[in-house]
Order: sequence, then structure tokens, then C-alpha cells
Amino acid sequence: MSRTNGQWRLARRPVGNFQDGDFTWCEEPVPALGDGQVLVRIVYLSLDPTNRIWASQDSYLPAVKLGDVMRGGGIGVVEESKNGAFAPGDVVQGLLGWQQFYVSSGSDLQKLPKLPVPLDAWSGLLGAIGLTAYFGLLEIGQPKAGETVVVSTAAGAVGSLVGQIAKIKGCRVVGLTGSDEKCEWIVKDLGYDAAINYKKENVAEALRKHCPKGIDVYFDNVGGDILNEVLGQIALRARIVSCGMISGYNATTPPPGPSNIINLLVRRGRMEGFIVLDYLSRAEECFRELIPWWAAGKLKYRVDIADGLESAPKAVLRLFDGSNAGKLIVRVSPEPS
Amino acid sequence: MSRTNGQWRLARRPVGNFQDGDFTWCEEPVPALGDGQVLVRIVYLSLDPTNRIWASQDSYLPAVKLGDVMRGGGIGVVEESKNGAFAPGDVVQGLLGWQQFYVSSGSDLQKLPKLPVPLDAWSGLLGAIGLTAYFGLLEIGQPKAGETVVVSTAAGAVGSLVGQIAKIKGCRVVGLTGSDEKCEWIVKDLGYDAAINYKKENVAEALRKHCPKGIDVYFDNVGGDILNEVLGQIALRARIVSCGMISGYNATTPPPGPSNIINLLVRRGRMEGFIVLDYLSRAEECFRELIPWWAAGKLKYRVDIADGLESAPKAVLRLFDGSNAGKLIVRVSPEPS
Repeated sequence: MSRTNGQWRLARRPVGNFQDGDFTWCEEPVPALGDGQVLVRIVYLSLDPTNRIWASQDSYLPAVKLGDVMRGGGIGVVEESKNGAFAPGDVVQGLLGWQQFYVSSGSDLQKLPKLPVPLDAWSGLLGAIGLTAYFGLLEIGQPKAGETVVVSTAAGAVGSLVGQIAKIKGCRVVGLTGSDEKCEWIVKDLGYDAAINYKKENVAEALRKHCPKGIDVYFDNVGGDILNEVLGQIALRARIVSCGMISGYNATTPPPGPSNIINLLVRRGRMEGFIVLDYLSRAEECFRELIPWWAAGKLKYRVDIADGLESAPKAVLRLFDGSNAGKLIVRVSPEPS
Repeated sequence: MSRTNGQWRLARRPVGNFQDGDFTWCEEPVPALGDGQVLVRIVYLSLDPTNRIWASQDSYLPAVKLGDVMRGGGIGVVEESKNGAFAPGDVVQGLLGWQQFYVSSGSDLQKLPKLPVPLDAWSGLLGAIGLTAYFGLLEIGQPKAGETVVVSTAAGAVGSLVGQIAKIKGCRVVGLTGSDEKCEWIVKDLGYDAAINYKKENVAEALRKHCPKGIDVYFDNVGGDILNEVLGQIALRARIVSCGMISGYNATTPPPGPSNIINLLVRRGRMEGFIVLDYLSRAEECFRELIPWWAAGKLKYRVDIADGLESAPKAVLRLFDGSNAGKLIVRVSPEPS
């Protein structure tokens, strides 16, 4: 019981990018469990763009309080339980935080079913990533076979699944990403019809070239200028799934909105916000489709693993400079054998 | 047959507001009818914000060609017909243009049914105005009883109907308009719960005061800053009906988009463009509800009539400075007795 729980606590509100000193490393003893409680050893901590929102402002969840353990999604193993619903060895997920151990009443833990996938698939394929890609694209975007789907952060954790699911549904799929290596990966390995390196190419011209009939569905993870260029080229009755606006998360003043928004009006487009939390209850329906697609080789995922909880504050920056390759996670402790 | 057809033709693309010289007054003889043709004497010409779009750019309809008669909706009476589907005395509507007479093949005319309403009701209550208010609010906005609905140009032709229909549906309704007189009219005569004079009041503060639970539905006729302030105060799962962006129609460079658009994401809002042309086939369903509401005194309309086709280029400016009171129309010739 005298084990140590290493933690990253939020020390101050970030301004712009996360910086040294935004988090403080703390160690405290792992507490003894009370009745009904569960002790979880965290295995994988998920690093996500939304971490930046949680650190600075109330949004769809309240901001993390200064001094509190940083909020983060994670996967862990139950080590001890005084709660009848959980037994040692159970694999769980939840907002476990940037720490090595999490003590829960059980109500905020989701027990993961035993499925024929490796544990890291819960980070890169299933879990919030898979739910976001699946429900965001299919429920909000409603792509139809033959339509043109554009995906931003197309080589990212969510984007790479979105593009592949759109291909499975028979769409023409164009991805935007930030390096030639990623462009090659999404076309050759993932089956995108075309890729645009937004750091090198003129995005408006490239979209015109690759989407000659206009853009029917845009899965937006970035907002900003790319959203504006897409709005300039939407087809009649286009659907924009607003899933993230990472381009603005580090802004110290609100970035300007998209001036082409008038096209929503003249082309009867629809833009709708999407947060995966609203779909958690439908996870099974999603996984029932994703796993066979993955097993058949039609849906690939990639995880980018940083080792050790200590690395989290540095690793999270890679989401914002685009240097991560696949779903970014931190290995906090070894996978159970 | 030697009667004259006075016309306003588009002489050049407007820059900013319409100006002297954008239109040229022409007179030509009313032509003799060929087989299948119909001669319509125009009674009321409708002046609408979208006229400004039609004059300058391709949009949901192609731009009016330079030298052509300016496009405009209108109501008229058939004077002569060599088309079996129309008889002298029939009342019709369509895109009759800024002219005194219109010669049609009949395919672009809609015969108006004999309904227990005055002829100007086809301008101010039924026709495109009523369809826009009814389907835009109910199909796109989907207001539920008890929700808060905000309407811009709340004393205007469309807005005043939207606000009253929202009241009929049991909503709390807040209107934005540009004068104290109009504020008083929409609250006292139309039954709005509150009015905001956007020219005098701080819009963000006034919205906070009148919409303490946030804004569930916004019927947007203006875009621009007011759209941005509304986006800042939307409730969870808000619906924004994007029906017009008059604040930007005269802009010579695209105005910046709304920086609060990120709230669509975090509050899972939906913003959707709406064009009445998509709903013309469902007119009867709409009028069947609007007319009894009007007859029962629950739905009022107001027309603001400019006399004589010559007045059209000056009168249309009143849409953009907000000085019209109700649906703006031009009386081109007398109502049939």
C-alpha cells in the first residue's frame, strides 16, 4: 500500500501552446481503498487535441481546476476492488487522468469486453477514436456511395479511420495532411483517392483539382483556413462534420471565422458539431462493424507510443505540430500479459 | 397591341449598395403573343434582399446578365392568353421581372388559387415570404414548445412571420430589429416576448438578459456580427437557420466569418442553409396552416408599398438601411377589381 502514484497536475492555464511549467509533477502514496472503490493501474494514457481545451476553459466539460490532476482518457487494469462490479484483472477505460493509478467509485469506469483485438486497439481503433470516426462520419456526415468526402488531419488517429470508412462506403476520399510521407501512407496503405500536403500545396487549387464535382462531406478536425477553403467548394447540400478545430485551440485571441460561410446558405449546406460523448451508449453497434473491417484488412490503425508518464507534457505537443504518426498514447505501465 | 412595357434593365454590376446608374429605364412595345404564350400585367413587384445577390453573382440562381431585365418576383393578372392553361383574369405569380408586362410560355407561372385573402397577402403572408418563414422555422429550426427562439430582422417580412409562428408553437421569442418603433410593434402587436434594438443596445448583453437559458433556435436573416453574438450564446444542440446574410450582401470584400463558430462544435449546434425554392412544391401544406392563423388574428402581416415601377431602384435601398416597415413591394399597376 505504500506504492507511489506519479501525477501531472495542471499548474496554470496555458497561453498558446502548452509550455514547461504548465504542469507540475507530483507523487503521492496510492491510498487504501474504501468500500465500493476500485484501484486501476493505468496502462495507456490517451493524448488528444481536446486536452488543450480542457486545460484552459469550460467547454462541453468544465475546465480542469488548477492544482488538479490533468484530465485524460486512459485504459487500465483493475489491481484491487472493493466493488462487486469489478474484479482484479478487468480491463477498464475512462477519464483516468495523467497519473499512474486511479481510484474510482466504479461509476465512471467502463469495463472493456474481451474482444479479439490487441489492447492498443482500444486506443487506436475502438474507444473514443473509433466512435468519433464512425458516428461522426456516418450519423452527421451521412455519406452516400459516389460522393466526395474530404478529411482533414487525414493521417491522424480519427482522420485515418474516417477516410477508410468512407472508402468502405463507396465514396471518393481526399485527405489533407502535413507531410509527403503521410500523404504517401494514406494513399498507398489506406486507399485514399488523393492526398493534399497542406503545408506545401495551395489548398484551394488542390481541392479544385481533386474534387471536380465539389465537396459533399467534409470531416473537419481543424477549422481555420482549411475549413474556409472547403466552404468555398462545397456541393449542393453538403454536410460538414465539425469534430475539431485544432487550428484554433492554441490561439490567444479567437481566430476569425470562415468568410465563405455564406455558402452554407446559397448551397443549402449543413454544418454540425459532434462530440463523441453523446454516442458512448452506442459503442457496441460501432465495434460490431469496426472489428470485422479491421480483421479483414480493410481498416488499419496505427498507434504512436511515448514511453513513461513523465513524457506526457512533451509528447502532447506533437499533436499540434503534426509530428505524430497515428493515435498518440503514453505507455504508463506494461500491458497485462 | 401598341402598349408600352416599361422596364428596369441591369446596366452594371453593383459595387456596395445599389447606386444610380446600376439600372437603366427602357420602354419597348408589348409584343404580340405567339402560340402557347401568356401576357401578364404585373400588379405587385416584390423587392427582396436577394435581389442584391442576383445582380452581382451566380448563386443558387445565375446572376442576371447585364442588359437583361432585372429579376424579381411578382404577382400579376393574365390579360391575354394563347395557352389553354391560363385565361384572362387569372392571377399568377413567378419571376416576372422589374417590368410592367411579362410574356411567358406559361411553364414559369404559378396560378394562384382563389383563397379568402386580399391580393397583397400573396406578397406579405403567402408566396415566398410565408413559405420561407414557415418551412425555414419549422423544418430547419425545429422549435419545441418552451425553447427560446431568436429572430433577426424581426420586424421584416419574413422575420415578423417567423416570430409569430414561433409564438404559436409555444416558444419564448426574442426579436432583433433596428428602431424603437419596430421594437414596440413586434412586442405589442405581434406578441414577441422581448425586442432588442441592435442599433442602440449592446447585443451580447441584451441577448444574455432576454435568453437566460441560451438560444435554442436562431432564425438568421443577417449573418455578420449578430450571428457571431448569437453563436456565443447558443444552448446545447441549437439550430441556426441560415436564411439570409443581408449584412454581407453589399460588402465589396467578403466579411470575416463568425469567430464564435467553435461553439457549433462544443455545443453540438447545427447551422443549415435554407432556400425557399426547395419548398415550392409544398406550398399548399403551408398555406393551409397560415390562412386560418391569419383569419384568427394570430398571424399578422404588413406590406410597405412603393407606388409605380419607376420607384423600384430607390425603394430597394430601404431593405438595406432597414427603413421599410413590413414586406416591401412596388405597386406596378392597380389590383384587379
